[in-house]
Amino acid sequence: MEDENQRQLHPTKSIRCIVKLGGSAITFKNEFETINKEKLETVSQQLRQAMMVSTNSCGKVLGMDWSNRPGVVGTSCVVDDFFYLPALDFTHFIVVHGGGSFAHFQASKSGVHKGGLNQPLVKAGFVATRISVMSLNQDIVRSLAREGVPSVGMAPFACGWVTCEKNIASANVSMVAKAIDSGFVPVLHGDAVLDAAQDCTVLSGDVVIRHLAEHLKPEFVVFLVSIMFFQSCFFTSRALRSITWRYVSGVFDRPPTEPNAVLLREIEVHEDGSWSVLKPKLENLQVEMTVAAHDTTGGMETKISEAAMIAKLGIDVYIVEAATSHSLRALSGELKDNIPEDWLGTVIRFQR
Amino acid sequence: MEDENQRQLHPTKSIRCIVKLGGSAITFKNEFETINKEKLETVSQQLRQAMMVSTNSCGKVLGMDWSNRPGVVGTSCVVDDFFYLPALDFTHFIVVHGGGSFAHFQASKSGVHKGGLNQPLVKAGFVATRISVMSLNQDIVRSLAREGVPSVGMAPFACGWVTCEKNIASANVSMVAKAIDSGFVPVLHGDAVLDAAQDCTVLSGDVVIRHLAEHLKPEFVVFLVSIMFFQSCFFTSRALRSITWRYVSGVFDRPPTEPNAVLLREIEVHEDGSWSVLKPKLENLQVEMTVAAHDTTGGMETKISEAAMIAKLGIDVYIVEAATSHSLRALSGELKDNIPEDWLGTVIRFQR
Repeated sequence: MEDENQRQLHPTKSIRCIVKLGGSAITFKNEFETINKEKLETVSQQLRQAMMVSTNSCGKVLGMDWSNRPGVVGTSCVVDDFFYLPALDFTHFIVVHGGGSFAHFQASKSGVHKGGLNQPLVKAGFVATRISVMSLNQDIVRSLAREGVPSVGMAPFACGWVTCEKNIASANVSMVAKAIDSGFVPVLHGDAVLDAAQDCTVLSGDVVIRHLAEHLKPEFVVFLVSIMFFQSCFFTSRALRSITWRYVSGVFDRPPTEPNAVLLREIEVHEDGSWSVLKPKLENLQVEMTVAAHDTTGGMETKISEAAMIAKLGIDVYIVEAATSHSLRALSGELKDNIPEDWLGTVIRFQR
Repeated sequence: MEDENQRQLHPTKSIRCIVKLGGSAITFKNEFETINKEKLETVSQQLRQAMMVSTNSCGKVLGMDWSNRPGVVGTSCVVDDFFYLPALDFTHFIVVHGGGSFAHFQASKSGVHKGGLNQPLVKAGFVATRISVMSLNQDIVRSLAREGVPSVGMAPFACGWVTCEKNIASANVSMVAKAIDSGFVPVLHGDAVLDAAQDCTVLSGDVVIRHLAEHLKPEFVVFLVSIMFFQSCFFTSRALRSITWRYVSGVFDRPPTEPNAVLLREIEVHEDGSWSVLKPKLENLQVEMTVAAHDTTGGMETKISEAAMIAKLGIDVYIVEAATSHSLRALSGELKDNIPEDWLGTVIRFQR
């Protein structure tokens, strides 16, 4: 069942890109609720660069976060500079982020993903999970705003995203579309949400991205990932597959620590859900993973299957390490027709 | 036009109370973005006391904020204590807060309330206003959670509250109802929102309360106010009215600094929008204010007219100073049939 709002959800302005900010790309995965400020700042700067069509006459970045910051003297307030500024031209982006070292502890300790709000632990965990992820969301919104990106936080829970048996049952995508039409950059995230079958669950940022891509049809999607994170993903899933997947600047055919590991530059998704590697041409390569009904509990399977499901919509998906020259090129859309040899990352496309 | 979600908005559980946390009652009005932590903590404790029907067996408050806090060593994490806790029985509350010393600077400096998102200053101000109010919302949600209140932030902007010529055009009240049915305490607030006629505006917390009251029919509404705030309100409006209103533990007939100032204990709102003071009986009292079409730009007129419009729905409204024994009595619902002589505050009721 789709929300009735879906009927009027299309923004009048075309969306250039939906960006997934891997929670682990912008937080320190092993340090409780700790943001990688340097990386987040670079990511925010790259997003501004990628979005801006024109530059303002004064040339400087006019920040939109006019609030106090702990440990920072004074605000980044530049209000007066705005007075005579002409309207800036931006392409339309949506940002979705994961949790990284935020929210994970709270959700897993309480079992929010398994539901059961009649249990005090689950209810408390739901509250605690939302508090943690909202802290991260606020920091990301503020970082983007400081770089002049007109970011607005839109929590899926508050937006009315509700699941049923962990699949999205309704989602107020129309409000996201309205925000875009008004010139804002909505910043969504994985969230604790209500579930019609089991009271509550955790909705992953990857599922949010796929749903938005399906309904808002961006030109392309970029997953900004981190080496550290996908190393751990790899080791989790290595026993499961005859072909090992790993993201380090993209998807590899085996652990990059092994000799002859090859970056899969271009993966093609077929109508039946199977995959093949277009570039480079490899012998003895057997892809076992297919695009199956997805599983919202997260993990690597969800991530890859969500990316492939987006590609099946005819939307190119780029997987690239965050805050590098490669991520900037992907965000800027320059890879559309041709992937240069010196670009490190993986593109997943629907069969042409 | 009401949102289509309105059709299914009624929660199955009856709502006992909608509480307005006056922004100025929980922040220091004249100190930029500074929370009155002591008062907020007391207010949070009173809300827990008022909501709880049963107490848990271990007797201690089990906090639901498991996140880091700046300046606080360790988290308030008490996860293990939840394991064998029986489900607690709460009455259903909604909290709505204002901005106090948050968001006001950002909104007024940029003119968000006047609209015009094509102006870079207004767009930036919209972003900055939302960042500021979301900071306050997060702090209030966390304070409530630490007191064991299962609070969830629900920003009107993200919930799809949209105005047209500053009146509410659509609002996803159904999501608030769903959150209540799931046993949570939604925490909404005044917010920068999209406006169909002028791009954007500021939706005041008082208007949010009135809309929620109209659609969710709580048993009663409590406005928690502060002396300081309403002093300034009084002086703003004193020239406008032959009867002066001031909230100090309620509404007075003249500045309480003047001799013979009388606390208006019970005000009756009539069908035609006129008012009369039931208690105490005063001679030569002339009430000029009527319940007119409201004005969302805020200020004292909005506050009083919103309170009266709620009363006209048959819902008793209590105006009382926050974090006092009087506010606890109002929140607990003990004033319903009889206002004791020693209770300091004002009740506004529809003519019986």
